[in-house]
Amino acid sequence: MPSLKQNGIPLYVQLEEIFSERIAIGEWAVNETIPNEMALCQEFGVSRGPVRQALDQLVRRGLLNRKQGKGTVVLPRKAENPLSDVYSFTRLIERRNKRPSIRLLAFDVVPAEKYAVTYLNLQPGAKIFKMRRLRLADDEPLIIETVYLPYEICPALTAKEVAGPSLYTLLREQYGVNLVHSKHYFEPTVANEFEAGVLGIEKKAPMLLQETITYTFGDSPVVFSKAVMRGDRVRYYVELTAPIVSP
Amino acid sequence: MPSLKQNGIPLYVQLEEIFSERIAIGEWAVNETIPNEMALCQEFGVSRGPVRQALDQLVRRGLLNRKQGKGTVVLPRKAENPLSDVYSFTRLIERRNKRPSIRLLAFDVVPAEKYAVTYLNLQPGAKIFKMRRLRLADDEPLIIETVYLPYEICPALTAKEVAGPSLYTLLREQYGVNLVHSKHYFEPTVANEFEAGVLGIEKKAPMLLQETITYTFGDSPVVFSKAVMRGDRVRYYVELTAPIVSP
Repeated sequence: MPSLKQNGIPLYVQLEEIFSERIAIGEWAVNETIPNEMALCQEFGVSRGPVRQALDQLVRRGLLNRKQGKGTVVLPRKAENPLSDVYSFTRLIERRNKRPSIRLLAFDVVPAEKYAVTYLNLQPGAKIFKMRRLRLADDEPLIIETVYLPYEICPALTAKEVAGPSLYTLLREQYGVNLVHSKHYFEPTVANEFEAGVLGIEKKAPMLLQETITYTFGDSPVVFSKAVMRGDRVRYYVELTAPIVSP
Repeated sequence: MPSLKQNGIPLYVQLEEIFSERIAIGEWAVNETIPNEMALCQEFGVSRGPVRQALDQLVRRGLLNRKQGKGTVVLPRKAENPLSDVYSFTRLIERRNKRPSIRLLAFDVVPAEKYAVTYLNLQPGAKIFKMRRLRLADDEPLIIETVYLPYEICPALTAKEVAGPSLYTLLREQYGVNLVHSKHYFEPTVANEFEAGVLGIEKKAPMLLQETITYTFGDSPVVFSKAVMRGDRVRYYVELTAPIVSP
């Protein structure tokens, strides 16, 4: 029987933690309705405010869902992906046994701005492809990515081609460009209105922003991309061997 | 001269991108005031609405700050940490040339809930230390972590000891427990009111949630921790060698 502490940590924080732990170990099972607010108030001997605050936050984090007429239901657990899946969203989605697909939101050839010139190491005035793609898993929108690609390496590239799932395979097989190395940056962000609308989530919902630079031989950058992923769907893990002398 | 496209991507999304790129390449320099809203409206030939929406989102993401009487100022760029720094917050902070310190928010010995029993592989009824620590970098609050630790491995542990920066060093040197392996999970989240207050950020500001299990020999879990980090301060990177056959 869990108990709340009088240790300066607010009740709603302690409740959020207890509830999230019940979900983690399956004491509150997936797709089942959890006890209603009144029952939770009674169990913990608290008023409605902290219980509701705790539940609100778990809804925001994608652990719970409020269903009209059905109460509050536990959502399926987030799929976990090894961090190496950052290299390929296609693989990330397939590993979840879902079918990856792409909807092309925009596809333009434009003069490279200073930004792309810098990141792709281009000559000023060079042209680039700039495309925005929505990636879906079993037809559910998951990721919006913006891709910058030098025009000169694949001038015949078409909108139809980039609507296929793997740009990297396309570059290798159609254009003879081999990608050998990549650098990935991560940070959390929140959805703007456009992203929220396209992904079917709330404005300011948690998102993971991932920026990637992919290189061919000789450390030459070829593809630069920025992707935002639904925070209630993404969870990465990585395993490390601890240093002998820990800092 | 950047131009806006009529390609179905809303103006405020295109503006957010252009502004963020100016910040990334230093065209809008750190600690300097950017052009005011009127000037930006004129430059891009748009109304105030999309300009303000774009700036709001960059403030939320921690790239810009609105200063009373000074206009909108570019914040210092986020420090970037190699992903291996997830192993040690002390190292993560030191690599930024900041002084790490800890403020202990709570420290209790409690019977392990089912959750801790599961994650730390304990006997039902075992006791654990449960502590909540605030980690600061040069006295700025950065991370709130909750740590679960079996009581039996270090029964003499004191609140004073865990207010020192490295729990891992303490476990090795004082209690002979060597940590050899760790598993780290990441996902984005947003700040609840407590976290926002302690970290000095807005409620629902972006955060990175990081869960860690650290093991001693024989794959025995020793420390389980959950940490939330200020999203406007954290940016990890990782480098990968691309697979020969990309998926």
